Amino acid sequence: MSELLLRAGKLDAADELAHLRERFVLDPAPGQDGDEAGVYLDGNSLGALPANVADRVADVVRRQWGELRIRSWEESGWWTAPERIGDRIAPLVGAAPGQIVVGDSTSVNVFKALVAAVRMAGDGRDELLVDATTFPTDGYIAESAARLTGRTLRAVTPAEVPDALSDRTAAVLLNHVDYRTGRLHDLPALTAAVHARGALAVWDLCHSAGALPVDLDEHGVDLAVGCTYKYLNGGPGSPAYLYVREEWQDRFDSPLPGWNSHAEPFGMSPSYTPAPGALRGRVGTPDILSLLALEAALDVWDGVSVAAVRAKSLALTDFFLECVAAYTEPGRVECVTPERHEERGSQIALRCPDAGEVMKRLIARGVVGDFRHPDVLRFGFTPLYVGFRDVERAARVLRDELA
Amino acid sequence: MSELLLRAGKLDAADELAHLRERFVLDPAPGQDGDEAGVYLDGNSLGALPANVADRVADVVRRQWGELRIRSWEESGWWTAPERIGDRIAPLVGAAPGQIVVGDSTSVNVFKALVAAVRMAGDGRDELLVDATTFPTDGYIAESAARLTGRTLRAVTPAEVPDALSDRTAAVLLNHVDYRTGRLHDLPALTAAVHARGALAVWDLCHSAGALPVDLDEHGVDLAVGCTYKYLNGGPGSPAYLYVREEWQDRFDSPLPGWNSHAEPFGMSPSYTPAPGALRGRVGTPDILSLLALEAALDVWDGVSVAAVRAKSLALTDFFLECVAAYTEPGRVECVTPERHEERGSQIALRCPDAGEVMKRLIARGVVGDFRHPDVLRFGFTPLYVGFRDVERAARVLRDELA
Repeated sequence: MSELLLRAGKLDAADELAHLRERFVLDPAPGQDGDEAGVYLDGNSLGALPANVADRVADVVRRQWGELRIRSWEESGWWTAPERIGDRIAPLVGAAPGQIVVGDSTSVNVFKALVAAVRMAGDGRDELLVDATTFPTDGYIAESAARLTGRTLRAVTPAEVPDALSDRTAAVLLNHVDYRTGRLHDLPALTAAVHARGALAVWDLCHSAGALPVDLDEHGVDLAVGCTYKYLNGGPGSPAYLYVREEWQDRFDSPLPGWNSHAEPFGMSPSYTPAPGALRGRVGTPDILSLLALEAALDVWDGVSVAAVRAKSLALTDFFLECVAAYTEPGRVECVTPERHEERGSQIALRCPDAGEVMKRLIARGVVGDFRHPDVLRFGFTPLYVGFRDVERAARVLRDELA
Repeated sequence: MSELLLRAGKLDAADELAHLRERFVLDPAPGQDGDEAGVYLDGNSLGALPANVADRVADVVRRQWGELRIRSWEESGWWTAPERIGDRIAPLVGAAPGQIVVGDSTSVNVFKALVAAVRMAGDGRDELLVDATTFPTDGYIAESAARLTGRTLRAVTPAEVPDALSDRTAAVLLNHVDYRTGRLHDLPALTAAVHARGALAVWDLCHSAGALPVDLDEHGVDLAVGCTYKYLNGGPGSPAYLYVREEWQDRFDSPLPGWNSHAEPFGMSPSYTPAPGALRGRVGTPDILSLLALEAALDVWDGVSVAAVRAKSLALTDFFLECVAAYTEPGRVECVTPERHEERGSQIALRCPDAGEVMKRLIARGVVGDFRHPDVLRFGFTPLYVGFRDVERAARVLRDELA
């Protein structure tokens, strides 16, 4: 047995979060000999199924919808689900209650956030900055928000943001963790730089929430959005969320003022009066099946500290890099994820020219990561359910398939 | 036994759609003596649960998500669900395939449709008309669309539309059936009037699709939106849909150009190139649990003609009006739903000063309709699962509770 496999076993034995794996539906973990088990390293794309979700969803469908029907809007708490579930997400991103609503897709929430940010920044500020390395949808939506509000959109890398800021800047949309490279950006410093020039900082937390501390309140983030189907394990295409910092809520002027954000939604008034608080981020009728599946999925966080998750995440990615370095011919892959902990999210991206083919073979052998065009192998490490023997096995299978 | 109850039994016996009730999870129908059964007349707010949905959803959760995980985006057809399910809805609204995508809420789709309509109408047209009696969210969203595109919004009743149209009109947003009164508006004539002045007709089908023929293609409707949780029984807050007439698709310029509407979504290009066809109406990652619950729910339409549904709908509402007239003291309630078939949707709205209290008592006795502020009792008749004895019983309980 290799030294790395031995060490993996010891690390798993000492892992205080190891028992959380039981809260998910997964293949059995690799045994002491690292035998042929499936290894799921794609939780940064679609989180695994929490074990309690199926029964909860069955209850929502059969009893809440099937028996109570329309009464469930009140009796089963459907109507208040967006803000109630927002408050469940809040501690995971360092937010006090009352600042997050869940609903719509990330793209739609980026749109709400950017248009509202431009409006709150005021007429004198005519430029939006967007992360040039962002997940594409953020850039497309930012372009649309700029077009509809008569602002100019400028794409800059996060490193260029401080120099790009000016008195013209209305808002800056940044990703906390880059979807491709796994680079973690410096949210406190960048937010402070944006504020120093009087602009608003809007953060996309898709690739960070649930994997590392975000601390939105502490760092003064103005608005944030994120999906819930990656490290929050809410299910395929589960609803996204919108954070509106308490100080901004009274001025949050949504471009999507649906009836659910009205101060009196059942007053059926022809004129719009926005609700107080983060409810202004709601739009139409909330999507109950998906919302309540997400609510159940969030139960896996009971008693779990984000700090412990972050510590394990870094240990997992460190160990993966060590295994890859030990197992793989030098130069065969290039790691594009930063080595420094303070610049690393919870994924490792390796570049090689045949990445598409290599990933297909890995998946065929049960090691599931994903491929990002044109040459990136992407491996996500969800600390709630990935162990060190998973990591060793993934690196060993990778060695085989790169050979 | 009353003459009306006898007749109800005969009407049920002759009802060719009566067997469809078995496709739903419902309380037993009233017996020959019209005994104490629940009567669900709120399918115009939340459709009843189709019997096959729970098992389908369980499979989506346990197998597609829980076992196949990320592979399901291809293997379980998740990625193409919005357009595939759109094509399932298409025949119910008289649309050829390839013109409907499912996703997002009705409010969000109204926004996409109106901004796109304004852009397609061209710069010379600076006014939007909106149905002044519309469900409020449509008006709020229309106001936002007008504000963001620099147009003026004008609210007029559907009857006033022909005179309000001018060369300044970019688009008109109308409801096919009024949510409060149940009045059916003349879609062919109004669409023709809008076209005669060179504007675009945008229809909200929330209260008509699944209850009566819509014939979008035949009448040249430009854009349409609708929810799927009323007469389409998709479940609480299930995703809405957007119809983009084939001739407009190349010019459909969405204000929400998310990555799912990109010509090459996995190319991850920083610049946006819209997909061909109705796919342009997609935005972010589709909400799979809710979408696939809806897909299962649409199975209840197998072999069902919308014309037969409409015929039964009118028979049900006629019979309800007859029973209410026979059972209720004259003047106690005022019917605000038109008598004429061509002006009636699939609901009956009765006005009385104590409507809120009366509806509470009806619901306590198992007759479930809903109350609309300030004085409307609303009863929806879903022909797929409501029978004539249901109708007679509802009218009889109403008589008791009005007395």
